[in-house]
Parts: sequence; structure tokens; C-alpha cells
Amino acid sequence: MFIKTLLNEDRMPTSWYNIVPDMPEGSLKPPLHPATGEPVGPDALEPLFPMSIIMQEVSPERHIDIPEEVQEIYKLWRPTPLIRAMRLERALDTPAKIYFKYEGVSPAGSHKPNTAIAQAYFNREAGIKRIATETGAGQWGSSMALATEMFGLECTVYMVKVSYDQKPYRRIMMEVWGAEVLASPTDRTNSGRKILEDDPESPGSLGIAISEASEDAATHDDCNYSLGSVLNHVLLHQTVVGEECRLQMEMAGEYPDIVIGCIGGGSNYAGLAFPFMRDKLSGEKEIEFLAAEPSSCPTVTKGAYTYDFGDTLCSTPLFLMHTLGHDFIPPGIHAGGLRYHAMAPLISAVVNQGLMDAVAYNQTEVFEAGVSFARAEGIIPAPESSHAIKATIDKALQCKEKGEEKIILFNLSGHGHFDMSAYDQFLSGNLVDYAYPEEKIRESMAKIPKMG
Amino acid sequence: MFIKTLLNEDRMPTSWYNIVPDMPEGSLKPPLHPATGEPVGPDALEPLFPMSIIMQEVSPERHIDIPEEVQEIYKLWRPTPLIRAMRLERALDTPAKIYFKYEGVSPAGSHKPNTAIAQAYFNREAGIKRIATETGAGQWGSSMALATEMFGLECTVYMVKVSYDQKPYRRIMMEVWGAEVLASPTDRTNSGRKILEDDPESPGSLGIAISEASEDAATHDDCNYSLGSVLNHVLLHQTVVGEECRLQMEMAGEYPDIVIGCIGGGSNYAGLAFPFMRDKLSGEKEIEFLAAEPSSCPTVTKGAYTYDFGDTLCSTPLFLMHTLGHDFIPPGIHAGGLRYHAMAPLISAVVNQGLMDAVAYNQTEVFEAGVSFARAEGIIPAPESSHAIKATIDKALQCKEKGEEKIILFNLSGHGHFDMSAYDQFLSGNLVDYAYPEEKIRESMAKIPKMG
Repeated sequence: MFIKTLLNEDRMPTSWYNIVPDMPEGSLKPPLHPATGEPVGPDALEPLFPMSIIMQEVSPERHIDIPEEVQEIYKLWRPTPLIRAMRLERALDTPAKIYFKYEGVSPAGSHKPNTAIAQAYFNREAGIKRIATETGAGQWGSSMALATEMFGLECTVYMVKVSYDQKPYRRIMMEVWGAEVLASPTDRTNSGRKILEDDPESPGSLGIAISEASEDAATHDDCNYSLGSVLNHVLLHQTVVGEECRLQMEMAGEYPDIVIGCIGGGSNYAGLAFPFMRDKLSGEKEIEFLAAEPSSCPTVTKGAYTYDFGDTLCSTPLFLMHTLGHDFIPPGIHAGGLRYHAMAPLISAVVNQGLMDAVAYNQTEVFEAGVSFARAEGIIPAPESSHAIKATIDKALQCKEKGEEKIILFNLSGHGHFDMSAYDQFLSGNLVDYAYPEEKIRESMAKIPKMG
Repeated sequence: MFIKTLLNEDRMPTSWYNIVPDMPEGSLKPPLHPATGEPVGPDALEPLFPMSIIMQEVSPERHIDIPEEVQEIYKLWRPTPLIRAMRLERALDTPAKIYFKYEGVSPAGSHKPNTAIAQAYFNREAGIKRIATETGAGQWGSSMALATEMFGLECTVYMVKVSYDQKPYRRIMMEVWGAEVLASPTDRTNSGRKILEDDPESPGSLGIAISEASEDAATHDDCNYSLGSVLNHVLLHQTVVGEECRLQMEMAGEYPDIVIGCIGGGSNYAGLAFPFMRDKLSGEKEIEFLAAEPSSCPTVTKGAYTYDFGDTLCSTPLFLMHTLGHDFIPPGIHAGGLRYHAMAPLISAVVNQGLMDAVAYNQTEVFEAGVSFARAEGIIPAPESSHAIKATIDKALQCKEKGEEKIILFNLSGHGHFDMSAYDQFLSGNLVDYAYPEEKIRESMAKIPKMG
């Protein structure tokens, strides 16, 4: 019995898995134009993305080849290990077996480069010279900085000013990889200038940074925009995680009964889960799919399944998805990657079809789970990933109660090396749980446009 | 051709390699008692270390078994990958092949846990309940915190106060793993109180922290002391790195012509190099061994090979080693792990026998090499490890000049996730090279005791 199941490079999957053709008929709806209410075609996205990526966004193909150059960069750290959490099992005294796929071994420390590398490649192939993107605390920006450096592109990252000032470490990481990092709002875009005119001391927000980055891309021919989660092509690129994991579970002689992950925009969970969900959709396997989200941004557990905007400023098409309302701004929890008001349309559809469940946790119980994990397994997890750990521990304890030897698999999407001050708050007893923002959610949900 | 050569757990070495019996006769000399000048026996170390570790310190055995429980913890991250730096080769346009062994995948981010885990195990076996140790910026302390947590021991870390205040992230890491971290000087020890009496605002130093930790261990029966480099048993535990690497180079169908690493106390380099040096000592292979050190702490390149104290306060036995004088305090370079005044006696003997060479670099050229590496290979290296990268790049460029297809192997001993502010200084042009501290070295070398 191995603790780690390692996959050699020659067995790394050579295609991504697209769940779309396997979804029940009628379960997916196209994005709509906000003004006309009509389905938007691929061309609506052309100012922002290269056609190759737009075609992936709407592809009906089950398998899409991973270009060789993308595979070569993946191999700097992929395949990632599948690890049996034996010490955690023992600490919990559970009959369940716990496996986790560890994505924190990437140079940027999370699963995010899986799509950043692919997006940088397709943009370079399309003749693009520069990528503009936004980042909050820097997880996505650092992944895109890494990716553009690998393919010889320039990178402009609009980083939310308050994070730029208070959390310099990922900003420096991006600069090590050659990116230009700007504190957003900037005076380089109309969106930024407008905000600064009203409030020269604006701390910025993710919504503002998105507006700046997409304006930069839309107004410069050689520059494209890039998004780190939510969209179909992003989830597609992440399926390399689950495709590897299928092979590794087979090597370990196991098949998961429960597949767990955290969800913010939905990409890390889709990456692990969709390749297994294929077996549920085909009726071959019974599997429980469970995603964990923060109770202060309870998109799936409390949101509506309806058409809404992807951004605060109502500039994107309308997507059918779980949403708390496009102008909902969640409390400042440390799991910054899980603070999105909506959920990936594909994940939302899967929930709507009854294929998966979600559960919501407060941040102190999440950090408690993260510290237990670190003390058992060594690895200090990212606060986002600790949501998955909390759900895993709960499931493993249920197995103990019922005497069930289930196989639990979860995605450890990243390490917490850049989240130490959050751990400090937790250990010193200064971490607070935010009250469930009921009224704010009611208000923002009232502003969701009424479609169809 | 694989980029990464992965070794499965069932092939992880089950013994450490002790170079002592393979060293030329008369090349090693025993430590001496500072007062009597007589060789010290194993019993002199008993207040600080368990007998099992002391016996390793003086063992004549070539192979020493790695206990199964230690192997089990190693397997949380070991075997570590051997990686071919193909993108760096291409960037340098060199005919040389560059391989590196990556020790940054450990939960603490460096090679240090290889010995911390072993030391925690042997102490627990000896009935010890608590380990006291010192740390500067926290690399060693965090490794020991991880190790004690794994074996259910308590851990007290005396952390140099200026680092405790200015570099909180590794302090928090230690606390996540359950250690008690104290800003040294403390009022818990006579050594600490004496310093505080003279200067209540003392920023502390590694020398003071060592005195506090060893006093704590010597004055508490259930507590032992632990050291992270220099001593024979520490170098021994690190040889798991080189033993793995021998197997991996064989899998890759290669044998190194040049083996490179950074040296501070000497343990990461010995860990990689000694298992290969065996083949040079036996006359089977010609290999060039090259270690890189900072030019502001040029222990091997400028120091004397003579008996000197291991610590600033002259409380240890005298060791035959390369030394700049026991009270030499190097300038505050960012590679904190390379700021020791002396060198491991085993590494020093190997240098003295002409088996290896050393080279010294300034910190700006080291950071330049580190950034080049990060941009080619993704991984952001620790400043210590970047010394090895600089030496590797120089050798690879020599190969280019001469048209030689040499196989270069180096130890990437750790990642730089907790060194981002140093990278910030470098990228913003604010990193300085210290003048070679010639006069300070002459002064401190004048104070080396005259023995034999």
C-alpha cells in the first residue's frame, strides 16, 4: 500500500474532458444578451478571447486535445500526486479511506495554472502579445503571470488596491515571473479614471479590476482578457486533474464513493469531479458529489438558479446559474477565492439536475479543519481548500458513526503559504465568523433581472 | 524522455549512507575538549542528545537503517522528484544537461525535515517529551515543529527576536504545527536573562538562541536539544536525498559529471553529494563536486582549516573544520541559512582531501540567477538554493563555450515562498552587495584557539 500514488508523465492525460455532451438534454441553456434577451453567439466574445477558446466554450465534443506545448509546461509539475491521508484517518479513527489530489505542487501553489497555461498558449497561437487580467489577493494573477512568462507573452495584472497594499507577497511573485502589476483603480482606463474621480482613495474591488482588465483588452488589438474560473473553457482545462485522478485511483485499486471539493467559481471542483461524474451520468457508478462553500457567500446553498450577470457592473452576458445577485459583496473572509456572487453555469446545472449537493461552513470551523489536517498530514492548506477538508472530516466521522468503509476523495486545491496571517488570527482566537448576510442577500437577489 | 523522474515509495532507500568509513585514513579528527584539548567521548554529548543519535555521530558503519516510522513520515512527500531543467538549458543554449533534485516539496519547504523527522523519532524512542531548538528566520524551527508534531512531542523554539518581529510567517507556520515559539532572548533561561539585564531591547542573535535552547535542554530531564546542520548525524540523515537521486539518475540513464549545491552548515550539499562521492572515493567514477557559498560569509573559500568552536559563546567542543572564527558575524544577507561562521567537519575534511571545490558569490548575482530559474522552470527558489543555481548556470555556460555535453546535477534545497520581500528588494533595485568583510574576518580569525 502506497501513501502516494504517482503517475509518470507518459501516462498524463492528453485530452480534457468536456461534460457538455454527457449532460441530460435540455439541462444547459445558452447565455443571453442583456439588452435583447437573445442567445449570444461566439462572436460576442471575440473582443476578449481568441476564437480557439470561444470554440471550446461552446464545444459539443466530449474530448478536446491538450496541445503538446501545453502538456510540456504541465509536466513541470504534473501529474500531481494522489495521496492517502492515512494519518488523518487514524486521527479521526474512521473506517473510511481518505484520498486527496494535491494541486498545491504547481509553482503558483494551486490548480489555477492548469487553465492559465492553456489560455496563454491559445492566445499566443492567435498572435496575441499581452494578457490583461484582474486579481484579488493574487492567486489567479500569479498563475497567469507564470503562464504568460512560459509562452513569452506580456502580462498586465489589475490587482485590487487594498490587496496590493496589504498583501504584497503574491504581487512580488507575479513580478518575479515578469508581470506588470497595477494597483486598481488605475488612471490607465476609463473605468479606473471614473472611479478615481469620484474617490481618489478608492480601495478598489474585484468588480472594478475586471472592468479595467476587460477594457484594456477590448481597446488594444494585441491584448486579450483572461478569466480564472466560472466559464466552460476554464472548467474544461481543469479536468486534467480528474482525468489523472481516475488513473491514479485505478492504480490504487479504488473507486471513490464520495467526491469532495470547495466551490467559489467552481473550477477546481469541476476539474476533479466531472471526469468521475461521467460514470454517474452513464449510470455505471453511484457516486456522491459534495461541494463546500462559505456560509457567508452561500451561492449554491442559498442562491437562486436563474439568469444573472457575471459581473457587478452588468457588462457580461446573462448566464443561467446559481447567484446571490450580481451586486452581492460577501464579507471579507480569508478564503478570497470563494467570494464570487455566482457559480459556474456547468456546476449550477449539475446541482439543478440533482447530480451533486453543496454544504456551507463558517470560517472558524474551516480553519479548525485546516489546522487538524496540517497537524496530521504536514501540508498547510489554503483556506479555500480547507472547506473541502472540513466536508471530508464530517463525512469521515459519519462513516465512523455508521461503521461504513467508504472511499472519500477530495481536491486539495492549494497550499496556504501565503495565508499565514489568517492562520495567525485563527490560532490567536481573533478570527470571527460573520453573521449570515441575510438582508444583503435579499437585497441583491431582488436586483436579479427577470428573464423569460 | 521525461522531465521529471519519479521514484515510487517502494524504492525509497531504507538506509542512510555514512561517508566516514570510506574517507581516507587519518582524514578525520575527533572533536576536542576546549579546556583539556583531549578528544571528547560520546558521553560529553549526553545532556543534549539521545544515545542513539550520539552513536550515529561516531558510527563507523557505512549504512545505517532508516527506522520504519521515519520512512512512513518521509513518505508524506518523499521520494522527491528529480527534474530535468530543459527550459533553463534552452534559455542558456547550453549542450549541458541540467538535472535538479527538488527538496522544496516537503511541508516545511526545504530539505531540513529529513533530519528533523529522524531526530524527533530517536528522541521519542529515548523517552524524551520535548525538543528545544533555536531558529533564525525559521527554516529549521519550522522543520522541527513539523517533526515533533508528527511524533507527538512538544517543541520549544527560541527564535531570534528581530526575525520573530519582522518575519512572522514562519513563526505562524511553527504554531500551526503546535510548537511554542519564543522571541529570544527570553526571561526563561539564565543566558536570556543575562542578555536582557545588559540590554532589555536586545534584538537577539543565533548565538544567544543556541545558548537558550541548549540550556533549556540541559536543565530539563525530559527535554533534548536538536541541531539542524553541521554535525555528522545531521549530514547522515540528509543522505536519503542522494541515495534516492542515484536511483533516479540511473532511471534517467545518466550519471552526473558535476554535482552542485549551496553550503551554509553543509547538510543539504552533503545529503546530495556524499552518496555520489562514494564512487569517487572508490575510484570508480570521476566527478566534479562544487559547492557555492556567499562571498560575505566565505567559510570554505577564505576560512582556515583548523580546530574552532561551533558556537559564538565557546561552549561547544572544538571541531576540525573550515572556520572564519567563532565570533565572526556575517552581514545580513537574505540567504540566512548560509550565515554560519564554520562548515561541517565532514564537508571540511572532504575539501581538505581535494575531493570537492567551493566558489563564492555576491547576493545580487545570486538573485539574478534565482529569477532566471523561476522564469524558465516556474519554481521560485530559496535564496540559499539560488547559490547552487548560480554555480550551475556558470558551469552550463562554460560547457557552452567549450562545447561540452556534461551532466550537471544540483540540489534545489528549498522554495522561496517565505522570501518574497527579498525578491522585492532585488526587483526594485534595492538589493545591495556587501563589501567583502576582510578586516572583520581577519579579526575573528585571530581569535581562533591555537591547538596542537
